[in-house]
Amino acid sequence: MTLDAVLARIDDTLPQALDRLMDLMRIPSISTDPAFKADCARAADWLVEDLKSLGFDASARPTPGHPMVVAHGGSGGNHLLFYGHYDVQPVDPLSLWHHDPFDPQIEDTPKGTVLRGRGASDDKGQLMTFIEACRAWKAVHGALPGKLTIFLEGEEESGSPSLIPFLKANAAELKAEVALICDTGLFDSRTPAITTMLRGLLGEEITIRAASRDLHSGMYGGLAQNPIQILTRILAGLHNADGRVMVPGFYDGVTELPDTLRAQWQNLAFDHARFLGDVGLSVPAGEQDRTPLEKIWSRPTAEMNGIWGGYTGDGFKTVLPGEAHAKVSFRLVGSQDPVILRESFRAWVRDQLPADCSVTFKEHGTSPASAMQINHPAFEAARAALTDEWGLSAAYTGAGGSIPVAGYFKTYLGMDAILLGFAKDDDQIHSPNEKYDISSFHKGIRSWARILARLQ
Amino acid sequence: MTLDAVLARIDDTLPQALDRLMDLMRIPSISTDPAFKADCARAADWLVEDLKSLGFDASARPTPGHPMVVAHGGSGGNHLLFYGHYDVQPVDPLSLWHHDPFDPQIEDTPKGTVLRGRGASDDKGQLMTFIEACRAWKAVHGALPGKLTIFLEGEEESGSPSLIPFLKANAAELKAEVALICDTGLFDSRTPAITTMLRGLLGEEITIRAASRDLHSGMYGGLAQNPIQILTRILAGLHNADGRVMVPGFYDGVTELPDTLRAQWQNLAFDHARFLGDVGLSVPAGEQDRTPLEKIWSRPTAEMNGIWGGYTGDGFKTVLPGEAHAKVSFRLVGSQDPVILRESFRAWVRDQLPADCSVTFKEHGTSPASAMQINHPAFEAARAALTDEWGLSAAYTGAGGSIPVAGYFKTYLGMDAILLGFAKDDDQIHSPNEKYDISSFHKGIRSWARILARLQ
Repeated sequence: MTLDAVLARIDDTLPQALDRLMDLMRIPSISTDPAFKADCARAADWLVEDLKSLGFDASARPTPGHPMVVAHGGSGGNHLLFYGHYDVQPVDPLSLWHHDPFDPQIEDTPKGTVLRGRGASDDKGQLMTFIEACRAWKAVHGALPGKLTIFLEGEEESGSPSLIPFLKANAAELKAEVALICDTGLFDSRTPAITTMLRGLLGEEITIRAASRDLHSGMYGGLAQNPIQILTRILAGLHNADGRVMVPGFYDGVTELPDTLRAQWQNLAFDHARFLGDVGLSVPAGEQDRTPLEKIWSRPTAEMNGIWGGYTGDGFKTVLPGEAHAKVSFRLVGSQDPVILRESFRAWVRDQLPADCSVTFKEHGTSPASAMQINHPAFEAARAALTDEWGLSAAYTGAGGSIPVAGYFKTYLGMDAILLGFAKDDDQIHSPNEKYDISSFHKGIRSWARILARLQ
Repeated sequence: MTLDAVLARIDDTLPQALDRLMDLMRIPSISTDPAFKADCARAADWLVEDLKSLGFDASARPTPGHPMVVAHGGSGGNHLLFYGHYDVQPVDPLSLWHHDPFDPQIEDTPKGTVLRGRGASDDKGQLMTFIEACRAWKAVHGALPGKLTIFLEGEEESGSPSLIPFLKANAAELKAEVALICDTGLFDSRTPAITTMLRGLLGEEITIRAASRDLHSGMYGGLAQNPIQILTRILAGLHNADGRVMVPGFYDGVTELPDTLRAQWQNLAFDHARFLGDVGLSVPAGEQDRTPLEKIWSRPTAEMNGIWGGYTGDGFKTVLPGEAHAKVSFRLVGSQDPVILRESFRAWVRDQLPADCSVTFKEHGTSPASAMQINHPAFEAARAALTDEWGLSAAYTGAGGSIPVAGYFKTYLGMDAILLGFAKDDDQIHSPNEKYDISSFHKGIRSWARILARLQ
């Protein structure tokens, strides 16, 4: 049976596959920081060359930001589009990394062997599972597993500013029967998952200004407005004591979980004590009347992702600063409208400004929540393939993070997306010492081979 | 008359005096940042050499931090000790400076000619007014104006950690009839002032920790504690809506202004609209039932001097950080005890921590408030000399900033201190583009010559 030959080829060539992934990880493609623009282009070029070596017609397509990689190849069967992203998160605080984030290392840990470095899991390791599956298939069959388009973004970690224009401009080229997105995780280390509910995102940066310059706190303190004080007062009011978000109209469009999913999620027996315990916590925070899985999968949130103002260096400076800043993000569900919420949030902040203070806002992306229509036959095919590989039924889950591309595929290309991936909760994505289990990488490649065999 | 000859000499040699000050300002003696340790030593050595050239027996005296400059010279009359500090504040945000902060420039402005650069006013320009007065006196008389000790600190901007041990260890050497401290300002651009009430200072750095590492806000948000959220909630509660500080016991030991000073301050006709207007503000903040002068001279305050946590760079990072930080300072009056208040503040913060959060504190200095006994005859002599130079009676004022050395001189050397200086409210000390008016420098030197003539 040819699938077995492909799987055997995957097993036999795992070391070479890891070498390729480590090559890609050595390119510091941090999309949010302009200093790494050339590195993003270099990562795109690396992928183009690799895809060409598999017979794809691949190119790096320019955008106002970082390039998109688009590759077409194969023929026959369903036309499938695979999506991943080659950009990575910033690495600060660098001091907490045990080694250079862009010098990936294979490490033995008590939980198994891992590949450690920025992008190992999010998303270079994950996107390479698909490419490696194609490579093994090609080696065995001499051809790709059906008509494939591979579409790799370089701005996923910085709000995807070029994505919608690119999808609109290239809709005919990119539209396929169904999209496959590899940027999510397993349910737990043994149970695969297909993510069918995705939260949306609204990102806002606030700057509160008072005096026209930094002041001496001894000379002006007690008489002049302090923008840090105003900012903390406003942010402190973002949640009430029960964890509810206090922006007016915030819960408009929030839907309750369907009973079938609620029942399925109860059966998943999510171990929140372990989930929190892995990061040194023990008590669920946030909304007090919701289950832990609801909180991270299906409830809207408001989080402060960054705050800064005044003197933040060593020692002490008795400054009363002229401005203070915060980055705040909202996870959205149901039909919450990010554009309306952005205006509600801004008005709510403005209404709280005292005399002599002003505020400006900077937008960092808006995307609505989305829920997949899982009655498309490809969902059950993918689920069956995952079950073959993992020996346990794949769960239909929600996702805490936002993967707006899935919604955009639906809106702009009329195409459903199957989100599946092999990340684990302890992969430390977006954090120092990010890792990807070698078993995730290996079984991930095998999973895609099985899925491609079923979807052909 | 020989005083006239000294004043004429000061007028004639002003350009050379400015050149010397600019030489000293070119040394980036930022005491709070360890990167500038060698520069602090270099500034001390520069002053030692300059004082030796005036006939002082001068040396840089080592401490665990930056050196003290001690110089003895002259004979006869009252033994006077002069204090200033050669260290300066950090310069960030550097981008707001119009030129290199350590490349001083003389500029014509609509309000007069100024010398611009870090330390121009605080305190290199001010301390040099005294040294230049000594230089002119020596040139005219061939001797210094009586028995003088010059004592220059290099850690004033970083909490003076070595000062008390040094005063204790060298009390016999440093004790004089009275101390002269030049680190304060004019009342307004025409009216000189002697500062007789000084607020104390308590500086604290808070670190709130939750998860053991930075988390992905999409994966953990809504379930895990966010230390920025906890920090903003605590800091937002530091003041109530009336501007009162809410730390229990904070107002213990706060005294009301004596009626005589209250009457004098009312006569000063402080123009708070202009004071605030100069920095782009208009409405007095803080305690609603206090006059503006009370707020900045005689009322205790709590100010947030810095805050930071999470992602603060360009773009956006959906991080839920493991920790968040703030620097908070309290200005103290009357008999408020900074050590007791430090413990009250820490307990108040700890009491508000939710589950899974911890806090650590870092001390950044404690000093009590002090009030001078103005019945010492040197006060009236200095006041009369200032009136001679400025043509208006010197005001006895309070000071918003903390100058703990005055209290230490009283406590450890049993010596009163006359605080007078020539800074203006718009000198932008501790801020970008710090300046010192050439007229402040010039009339400051002349003022000291007149004071030394009267105190001899």
